[in-house]
Amino acid sequence: MDKRLQRSRERVLAAAYDVLVASGIGGFSVDEVARRSGVAKTTIYRQWPTREALVADACWRMVAEQEEETPDAGSVEADVESILSEIGRLLWTANWAAVVPSVIDAAERDPEFGEIHARIQAGHAAPLKTVLERGVARGELAADADVAVLAAALLGPLFYRRWFARQPIDEAFVQSLVRQVLRSPGTGR
Amino acid sequence: MDKRLQRSRERVLAAAYDVLVASGIGGFSVDEVARRSGVAKTTIYRQWPTREALVADACWRMVAEQEEETPDAGSVEADVESILSEIGRLLWTANWAAVVPSVIDAAERDPEFGEIHARIQAGHAAPLKTVLERGVARGELAADADVAVLAAALLGPLFYRRWFARQPIDEAFVQSLVRQVLRSPGTGR
Repeated sequence: MDKRLQRSRERVLAAAYDVLVASGIGGFSVDEVARRSGVAKTTIYRQWPTREALVADACWRMVAEQEEETPDAGSVEADVESILSEIGRLLWTANWAAVVPSVIDAAERDPEFGEIHARIQAGHAAPLKTVLERGVARGELAADADVAVLAAALLGPLFYRRWFARQPIDEAFVQSLVRQVLRSPGTGR
Repeated sequence: MDKRLQRSRERVLAAAYDVLVASGIGGFSVDEVARRSGVAKTTIYRQWPTREALVADACWRMVAEQEEETPDAGSVEADVESILSEIGRLLWTANWAAVVPSVIDAAERDPEFGEIHARIQAGHAAPLKTVLERGVARGELAADADVAVLAAALLGPLFYRRWFARQPIDEAFVQSLVRQVLRSPGTGR
């Protein structure tokens, strides 16, 4: 019986994840999850008392899917460029990219979504910060370079292109951005 | 009779705007608009056949409230700094800043919200682009400087701090950002 519960729980979560990706948090409905999973709404509500509890669990699943790889090609510029190119690619292709605005919106008003958002955010920023700190330690960047400001200067323009200007993010954009930030006076040496 | 209609329409729109600011698009409800405006739901639905039509009109009102001032202090660096400081201040204080994520989310799926979003976006970017183009014309920036890339490099980090890292945007951040972008090789001269 516990195994059956486990399986139905898994089916509901998988369906909830699909509904989240298709509709964002705003359009998320338990009816649709019930339809897709074939699990009755009453059963769903026994495990997730509210729509918000289910949508939050679906978001946590999205967080768990994030991959955090930290490249090491021997130069801070090459590593930063490889991280930004990959994020730039994912911003127009990955499931989470279409959901992030609704998570940010929910985070404006609800602390649990604030936590989910912080985790997604850390997933993007962590490899970049590692690479930048290594650049400082190796003497490729100035000893007093501010890693948080550099991360904002590097990630901000990518997110801006994706969600604000809605323009493509190509190799030329990433390259000119990386040069501009890492070779500016006060950053490089 | 037309005047009465006009007045009730105005009351509904003002209430819809307040509900939008308090709840975002996701939490927007016609019930709440009816309660706040004192106008019956049936009357509201006669003028706005759907919830989406009303929330879109409330968003357009927000667009109309945006102010676009273009400073001219005689130097591109001073002008860019003054524009970014003002945007940085508004990002943590203005009504629209709490609503923008839900507009971006809606824009992922609905063309009318895509248009609203493009207008809000243009409202932020237009004065900055004017100032940057003037900098190129005056010879303060390189003749081949890419104004769209520069705008992303300047606005992106502000939006990143507000919506992604959720960190404060102070004068020191704006100053170091402006220097980094405008004095980097290939941009300045």
